[in-house]
Amino acid sequence: MDRPMRGVNLGNWLVLEKWMAPGIFVGTDAEDESHLWPALDQITRRERAMVHRDTYITDRDFAWMSANGVEIVRLPVPYFTFGGFDPYPGCVDHIDRAFDWAERRGIRILVDLHTVPGSQNGFDNGGICGVCTFHLDRANVEVALDVLSGLAERYGRRPNLWGIEVLNEPVSREMWDLIDLPNRFRALDVDAGARSEPVPSTFLRTFYGEAYERIRRIAPDVPIVFHDGFRLPEWYGFFGAPDFRNVVVDTHQYLAQRAFAHGDTDLAGILAEIDHLGDLVREASSHVPILVGEWSLDPYSPAAATLTGTERRSYLQAVGRAELAAWEAAIGWCYWSYRLNVDSPERDIWDFLKAIETGLLPADLMADAES
Amino acid sequence: MDRPMRGVNLGNWLVLEKWMAPGIFVGTDAEDESHLWPALDQITRRERAMVHRDTYITDRDFAWMSANGVEIVRLPVPYFTFGGFDPYPGCVDHIDRAFDWAERRGIRILVDLHTVPGSQNGFDNGGICGVCTFHLDRANVEVALDVLSGLAERYGRRPNLWGIEVLNEPVSREMWDLIDLPNRFRALDVDAGARSEPVPSTFLRTFYGEAYERIRRIAPDVPIVFHDGFRLPEWYGFFGAPDFRNVVVDTHQYLAQRAFAHGDTDLAGILAEIDHLGDLVREASSHVPILVGEWSLDPYSPAAATLTGTERRSYLQAVGRAELAAWEAAIGWCYWSYRLNVDSPERDIWDFLKAIETGLLPADLMADAES
Repeated sequence: MDRPMRGVNLGNWLVLEKWMAPGIFVGTDAEDESHLWPALDQITRRERAMVHRDTYITDRDFAWMSANGVEIVRLPVPYFTFGGFDPYPGCVDHIDRAFDWAERRGIRILVDLHTVPGSQNGFDNGGICGVCTFHLDRANVEVALDVLSGLAERYGRRPNLWGIEVLNEPVSREMWDLIDLPNRFRALDVDAGARSEPVPSTFLRTFYGEAYERIRRIAPDVPIVFHDGFRLPEWYGFFGAPDFRNVVVDTHQYLAQRAFAHGDTDLAGILAEIDHLGDLVREASSHVPILVGEWSLDPYSPAAATLTGTERRSYLQAVGRAELAAWEAAIGWCYWSYRLNVDSPERDIWDFLKAIETGLLPADLMADAES
Repeated sequence: MDRPMRGVNLGNWLVLEKWMAPGIFVGTDAEDESHLWPALDQITRRERAMVHRDTYITDRDFAWMSANGVEIVRLPVPYFTFGGFDPYPGCVDHIDRAFDWAERRGIRILVDLHTVPGSQNGFDNGGICGVCTFHLDRANVEVALDVLSGLAERYGRRPNLWGIEVLNEPVSREMWDLIDLPNRFRALDVDAGARSEPVPSTFLRTFYGEAYERIRRIAPDVPIVFHDGFRLPEWYGFFGAPDFRNVVVDTHQYLAQRAFAHGDTDLAGILAEIDHLGDLVREASSHVPILVGEWSLDPYSPAAATLTGTERRSYLQAVGRAELAAWEAAIGWCYWSYRLNVDSPERDIWDFLKAIETGLLPADLMADAES
């Protein structure tokens, strides 16, 4: 069996998350991108979007990724990619550039629709904290389908398009309750917050079918990727022929879920949990091709956070080694994320370049995976 | 004899050069930083400076540099570093951050005063194209001395300050004529252009003495670095005790000077020229400690520019190997530059990270230099 493709997410480039680059939010009270852009005057908006996007990721990042064994990038894009949602700044020129750079450096791209109107999860990275109303209004769905069609039309014939992901992380009831979503991400729009609820599987099945049809009509051969919506086993029987061809299910495996469920544990406990995640990925892979589209080294362990220096390095290397072994049955994985713009060393593990260059995620793990 | 310290310039971060990041100049006709900032409205200026500086260089760059053998960075700063020259945006907070990052990663910093009022060379990187009037007005000199005092006061006790460089590239008559400066960099201010002339050695000796006194009073032990002003042999007898202690002379060795003088040559001719530069550096090093504060792989050869792929790589590797050997007598060298923000592969050789990661400047050359 082939080893998984190695990848990394280009998070916080075209879809912002405040914790990954708080500087972009200065001068506002905004906690998410939905509130950021309207809070800025027109000139600030133009400049902040332009200089951030022009500087945060460039060709030299693709040069680094290529030299360090990265084969695919997962590229989160917003629903306002193609413009027309003033004051939200479109970003299609930057996606074009990413395809050029990736082609030059032999890297393939998974374009990932990361936000939709009304939000599909209420996370900060979904664009509107505490709000999850995407599925309650057909107009939202039409916007999402139009953007997916647009992406398929514009990039469907690029030789280095690896796939199109329909929608990132539509939230489940289980996840909603686990993280106590309405209290963890408070809605500024109280009415929208009150109407919010997890995305039902019935809705998701219909939407996924429609999205498949729309993309497949335009791009007959491109892999189409569906996020598991934190309900991985529900999809085992769903994506079969003849209705679906060349489909991949994306599952995100953060150790946070363990931490929320079990609290702090020692390294042995964390490694046991990672083994368990490996079992889930292996089981799922026997039903449908699986991409571990997001993961990180963060053990979410208060005890681990107190380690420093060599101890911390050994600890994290053990976690990373176990995680990479756990994703072996998947067709690929993408680290979250390539780059942060924060100045706190304890977050270095979320920055793939830093994690590699400082030896937290050793380069030889990337090399080992080749054999 | 110890091998040279390996370094890189953080060009185009706090002192802009249009060719290194044309995007920062969009919406203006400005060719240099002096004309850029006044051409922008106040909000654009604030945002463009802030987001560029926050994003272009961060702690992760120091992490990469540290992991890749970089020991010192040469940090060009403008005369308006400490503010007070509206509309030019001060940048001392970012220098502070650079010291924090460098300290965390075990890297030392050479702070380099790269621009002064009136300009000391008329280059685009001197801040005002075609203008060289720094030395004609005592008020300019006072500004420069005050900034140097300010840098010494603020950073003189930082353990990872490697040195303070008094003034980058004050231009000589020989260099002025060689590059036909008034026609190569046309002055927008015709009157200032007409008054411009190379910086005389008599002025430079006096200014260097004053700058030494000012810095040395505040920072008794820090190395003070003087650019050779493209007249290296003139300094052989100058920096002796008891007047000067702990002094380094910075000489910039681009292959452009050969190209301007001799036109295009084949690889053998370029390698012979690099050998000659090595002789110059060795001879100078017998008189005073020498830093090769700027150099790059660019052979300035139209013939070389037509090469691609493996041929180009071998060619540039030969050039780089010869250059590194030529700088062996120096106490250190700094590549120009760490990062560009341009999208033209032929400029990749000016980007140290790209040159390393794509193998144009092989990582093993960095390792070899250790033995």
